[in-house]
Amino acid sequence: MHIAVLGATGVVGQEILSVLEQRDFPVTSLAPLASARSAGRSVTFRGKRVEVKPAGPESFNGIDLVLASAGATVTRELAPFIRKSGAILIDNSSAFRMDPETPLVVPEVNGDAVARHNGIIANPNCVAIILTVAIAPIHRAVGIRRIVVSTYQSASGAGLAAMQELQSQTKDVLEGRAATPKALPHQIAFNVFSHNAVVGPDGYNGEEAKVMAETRKILADPDLAITATCVRVPVLRAHTESINLSLKQPLSPERARTLLAEAAGVEIVDEREQNRFPMPTIASGRDVVSVGRIRRDLSQPEGLGLELFVCGDQLRKGAALNAVQIAEVLVGVRQPTGH
Amino acid sequence: MHIAVLGATGVVGQEILSVLEQRDFPVTSLAPLASARSAGRSVTFRGKRVEVKPAGPESFNGIDLVLASAGATVTRELAPFIRKSGAILIDNSSAFRMDPETPLVVPEVNGDAVARHNGIIANPNCVAIILTVAIAPIHRAVGIRRIVVSTYQSASGAGLAAMQELQSQTKDVLEGRAATPKALPHQIAFNVFSHNAVVGPDGYNGEEAKVMAETRKILADPDLAITATCVRVPVLRAHTESINLSLKQPLSPERARTLLAEAAGVEIVDEREQNRFPMPTIASGRDVVSVGRIRRDLSQPEGLGLELFVCGDQLRKGAALNAVQIAEVLVGVRQPTGH
Repeated sequence: MHIAVLGATGVVGQEILSVLEQRDFPVTSLAPLASARSAGRSVTFRGKRVEVKPAGPESFNGIDLVLASAGATVTRELAPFIRKSGAILIDNSSAFRMDPETPLVVPEVNGDAVARHNGIIANPNCVAIILTVAIAPIHRAVGIRRIVVSTYQSASGAGLAAMQELQSQTKDVLEGRAATPKALPHQIAFNVFSHNAVVGPDGYNGEEAKVMAETRKILADPDLAITATCVRVPVLRAHTESINLSLKQPLSPERARTLLAEAAGVEIVDEREQNRFPMPTIASGRDVVSVGRIRRDLSQPEGLGLELFVCGDQLRKGAALNAVQIAEVLVGVRQPTGH
Repeated sequence: MHIAVLGATGVVGQEILSVLEQRDFPVTSLAPLASARSAGRSVTFRGKRVEVKPAGPESFNGIDLVLASAGATVTRELAPFIRKSGAILIDNSSAFRMDPETPLVVPEVNGDAVARHNGIIANPNCVAIILTVAIAPIHRAVGIRRIVVSTYQSASGAGLAAMQELQSQTKDVLEGRAATPKALPHQIAFNVFSHNAVVGPDGYNGEEAKVMAETRKILADPDLAITATCVRVPVLRAHTESINLSLKQPLSPERARTLLAEAAGVEIVDEREQNRFPMPTIASGRDVVSVGRIRRDLSQPEGLGLELFVCGDQLRKGAALNAVQIAEVLVGVRQPTGH
């Protein structure tokens, strides 16, 4: 296939190139695209340097598939040209995620939705991907009535500059210099803060609103009750989530563990005696979502409440890997799963 | 008053000495006590160096008040001698917290319980103190049915060695060396992990079990439903908490904000337009508990669900300050509040 990667110089774009290589995706030609700022730069793919071209209306002629990780505004502008060229767009931005015509896909959860695309398939928000991989097996088995999720989100979700800021600012603070936030609004070194997305009139920030709406759409359950609190922590590239579930029908923690152990894309890390549970040092750079702390929620009637603690790599399963897995379903090298 | 500080060389003991000074507590004489390991060390109090003595059965003769921050085992061993000397024990360990004869006190919440002491008053777990300061005004007004809390806990809760480990290990990781956990069981630099307390057969760890039981006792509500997930983050000395409440009677976020703004020990940090909410860089080294992200929980019926995001200094309000405030109620320089 003739592939374009839009936003190829960004941290997710770079990860998409790695994942395409590692999974031996059938790439006939590669066109790395970025904004004019990246003009003259090149990327390495399968050992060869490929020049990055500025993305524009003419960039998509002869392209079969666009893997996009640009901002929502840029993607909205370019989408009509991608459509006109006949290419299919797998988009990592929020531009089309809630469009009723556009499937929002986590292959392990609703891979069958890929077939209903109309030229665009949306890649969900990173927290929503990691969340739904972990809870879909439980939702399928007994139904989830309500979700309360609090996150521990890495700097990578705010891009390469935020990752570099975490490192350089931490060095500054350790050496007694003042922290000077630039990419992020507050000090990230040795601090945690409420996610930097704009806060709406209902008090939820944009990140939380995405997690809540997208989780409902991915699980195809518009009535699902969900509340999220999204928080940045000084971690480089893996998101952790504390998940509290209210179930429609009873499920024991033991049965939940069995369901999760059998689930695609999940690894159980639940070693109570060693006190070893999902954490960024386990999940970073890996493809699976780690799930642990699987226990009955003692604040709910027996069988109807469940606690989970989950961690996944934000750049891989939370972004690049999920996009490439969608492409694999599209080209038929991956079996679709579904509701 | 003749005061003994047990565990005077520890990080909480040191903070107790600072708080006694800063609040001009009526100290006639000070006896800093510690284990034999600290023999020969001294502490500074009101500009004078005072020698640390090893704690033993004879240490409490002539003492009126013992402010203890030693381990639960040591405190249990010494308590009979403290009692025999006639001194009152304000204990920061978990030894007596759930003893029905021992009041467990957060002065802003149940200061009146101090009067019911029988020689010992227990200082609660740090997460429970910060939690109850923030939710007691709401509990008093409308009743809380259920609490789901996830924490972002600092290294200070694990002592001075853990704080030093966070700093030295972070330097190691930044400079490309391997992280070698000693004081904490897992890498704390650029990582988060489930709290290191021993995990019980129900899947909750010891820290979570304390938070749940102590919150019920402080609020004098044995039927309160509560579940906690306690997590360590790479932060030095302030604990952050994401709190989801289910209420018995309706309460608007606006009314909750008013109640909290009027509450003792609370400061509102809820600047939606500036995206500025409670965080360790705001709360560290300060006495108040910062409360923000006050919003309706959209996953519950209107008025019956509330979200809060809270941060407090673990060493001050979470430990030393609360202990000294209990002493202030005891000696009458602080008015007791109560249920």
